[in-house]
Amino acid sequence: MAVQAVESRTSDVSADSAVSLGPAVALSCRECGERTPLGPVFACAACFGPLEVAYDLPAGDPEALRARIEAGPAGIWRYAPLLPVPADVAEKPNLNPGFTKLVKADRLAHELGVTGGLYVKDDSGNPTHSFKDRVVAVAVEAARAFGFTTLSCSSTGNLAGAVGAAAARAGLRSCVFIPHDLEAGKVVMAAVYGGDLVAIEGTYDDVNRFCSELIGDPLGEGWGFVNVNLRPYYAEGSKTLAYEICEQLGWRLPDQIVVPIASGSQLTKIDKGLRELIALGLVEDRPYRIFGAQAEGCAPVARAYKAGHDVVRPVKPDTIAKSLAIGNPADGPYVLDIARRTGGAVEEVTDAEIVDAIGLLARTEGIFAETAGGVTVGVTRKLVEAGVLDPSLTTVVLNTGDGLKTLDAVAAGPRATIRPSLDAFRAAGL
Amino acid sequence: MAVQAVESRTSDVSADSAVSLGPAVALSCRECGERTPLGPVFACAACFGPLEVAYDLPAGDPEALRARIEAGPAGIWRYAPLLPVPADVAEKPNLNPGFTKLVKADRLAHELGVTGGLYVKDDSGNPTHSFKDRVVAVAVEAARAFGFTTLSCSSTGNLAGAVGAAAARAGLRSCVFIPHDLEAGKVVMAAVYGGDLVAIEGTYDDVNRFCSELIGDPLGEGWGFVNVNLRPYYAEGSKTLAYEICEQLGWRLPDQIVVPIASGSQLTKIDKGLRELIALGLVEDRPYRIFGAQAEGCAPVARAYKAGHDVVRPVKPDTIAKSLAIGNPADGPYVLDIARRTGGAVEEVTDAEIVDAIGLLARTEGIFAETAGGVTVGVTRKLVEAGVLDPSLTTVVLNTGDGLKTLDAVAAGPRATIRPSLDAFRAAGL
Repeated sequence: MAVQAVESRTSDVSADSAVSLGPAVALSCRECGERTPLGPVFACAACFGPLEVAYDLPAGDPEALRARIEAGPAGIWRYAPLLPVPADVAEKPNLNPGFTKLVKADRLAHELGVTGGLYVKDDSGNPTHSFKDRVVAVAVEAARAFGFTTLSCSSTGNLAGAVGAAAARAGLRSCVFIPHDLEAGKVVMAAVYGGDLVAIEGTYDDVNRFCSELIGDPLGEGWGFVNVNLRPYYAEGSKTLAYEICEQLGWRLPDQIVVPIASGSQLTKIDKGLRELIALGLVEDRPYRIFGAQAEGCAPVARAYKAGHDVVRPVKPDTIAKSLAIGNPADGPYVLDIARRTGGAVEEVTDAEIVDAIGLLARTEGIFAETAGGVTVGVTRKLVEAGVLDPSLTTVVLNTGDGLKTLDAVAAGPRATIRPSLDAFRAAGL
Repeated sequence: MAVQAVESRTSDVSADSAVSLGPAVALSCRECGERTPLGPVFACAACFGPLEVAYDLPAGDPEALRARIEAGPAGIWRYAPLLPVPADVAEKPNLNPGFTKLVKADRLAHELGVTGGLYVKDDSGNPTHSFKDRVVAVAVEAARAFGFTTLSCSSTGNLAGAVGAAAARAGLRSCVFIPHDLEAGKVVMAAVYGGDLVAIEGTYDDVNRFCSELIGDPLGEGWGFVNVNLRPYYAEGSKTLAYEICEQLGWRLPDQIVVPIASGSQLTKIDKGLRELIALGLVEDRPYRIFGAQAEGCAPVARAYKAGHDVVRPVKPDTIAKSLAIGNPADGPYVLDIARRTGGAVEEVTDAEIVDAIGLLARTEGIFAETAGGVTVGVTRKLVEAGVLDPSLTTVVLNTGDGLKTLDAVAAGPRATIRPSLDAFRAAGL
């Protein structure tokens, strides 16, 4: 028997498909609800709406499911019963991302005036040091299921490294497309795993358009683009953030959670994950609030939220938070809906506030976040000060990446440069 | 009752010391065996030999101890009963390093011709992405026990970041000394945690000499230098690599283990850790071989090993493996002894072989290692080819740091730069 969890309903598509992805039974259109069999498609044939994975989730005793999860591997595959992956996924070669630290951030809480318990979910601990390892790991399983032999993506950084590394470990070919003017560090990280790295003379939008062309061409046959034709599976990887946070809190929902917004997909999947846990009886059914965080230089969702709009007007990004710089976020309207439905909000911070928040997190908790982490910490501070975020409630802030990848954003250096003598050190007055 | 494990003997120093560091009972001279009470000292008062921590390790049922460890936190504190740290260490704010992945490296094994099982112990998964988080976390506990309020070190990179982050999280002041000509990335990583970072006009040796002066001066009062006056405690942190490898192999000793050599401390402590596990009955008592790995541009221990010497002649380092560039390794003679006693060896690889090995590990396993990881993988390949390392035995190779910190060593880039068109992509012939 299957539980009626979230988007999952009684399957109305043929179950005799050759594709076996665990509890996933179909793709379902977020707009019109139309179902289509599991396959490498991302848009609804009826209405062109975005497709997402629908499940028959494991019914029965929540205690038994909880025990099964807790006995699983220390990574996202402990949640295999809730993901579109085969049951034996943990035995296949992959990077085993996830189960990153949920850090109780008492010193940061003190600085922000949060008294109800503040936690940082630190995804810089993933294999290639960003949350992208989660989504790519799930996409790799879909690629295998559909018989793809090349893993591909368009990327401006974190995703390129995650795809290159995951493909190498899985023994798949990879071919990653990046804009030609990327920072040297990100280029090295994208190229070092030995896949084909191709620089495109153009912007990230040009790279994306090129990838869409490639999918329709015989040249791209057998290619799985993690963030295009495998996107419905890929996106599900973000649910594991919700699962881990709740399990690490002792199978308890956080009261408030602050999530960065790029395309908005991560925030919507965290909401989906929390609702699944409730539906399955793994956590108590009580309210939670989801807050979205953007950089002022790319804040289309925050602007729409504040203006009371249901749609998002695209912007041209100009911010140091490059991993969040998507001017036309596909899931923007869904984010607005979730923030409003849960009693959350969407807020933005300036580049200066981002840098300041990176420093605040580093000096209070010893966590060096990438700019996206500066965005969530900065927005948390701003929301507390504005009385929007309740400081007496348990709050989780996401850090989705590593400061080592966005070194240019931080201007930190020595307090003093001195000769090697005690007199010189004394004179420096430290 | 106490087990007679390794350097631990019946305590002959006063037990009524105010310092409580778990099972640690004294410091013991590696040369003359003289004991001294636990304190911030690193050299024997009788013979100036190096001091190390002696224990009364937990006796009794190995099964019970194993169960206690397995029920502990997913980090080095699960081994608190075997470390110089207070019993409640896991409850104090710290970075919780350790329990990094032991990756079964089948694709790398295939390339190297290893058939007996090849594993990479990947310490790039630590909080600041190097094994230094392990040793610093133990030093922080000693600093707290001795009432130090400032954490300090001399460093050329990884250690600076580890100390800065650990001090921030623990709420201690930090003051870190680096040579003035360090790479920008390492400077940012050292400074971002908000401690005092001081650049010294001189070489790393000058920085070290200055720190020794500072310890003897009133200016340095209340300062714990993790790699000087806290060194005996700090060094013990490396034992956790041995513990984790054995536990992750199912409480089994590896047959062969390949360890990088800088000062040589890590290799000697891994040997100490393995012997403790045997003495405690946590693993079966059978032979293991420890291999040391150096870069040709700084290979004093490998040279001494090959020449059959017992002492190590200092060299002037010149290699891209900067984290291993210690020309006069303090533990060199002990490394020679361990390599010979266990049937291992000490080998070296060129800078070109290091770069090649970084690429090999990345493209087979999706692990991007720093240069020190290139040294161990390169040496492993060389030792297999030479018939010194037995390919039919279980072998563990250490990767102690992250490729993101030594980007300059790797010249990886796009295969092609093209216009965003299918024709251009076709013409690129990928």
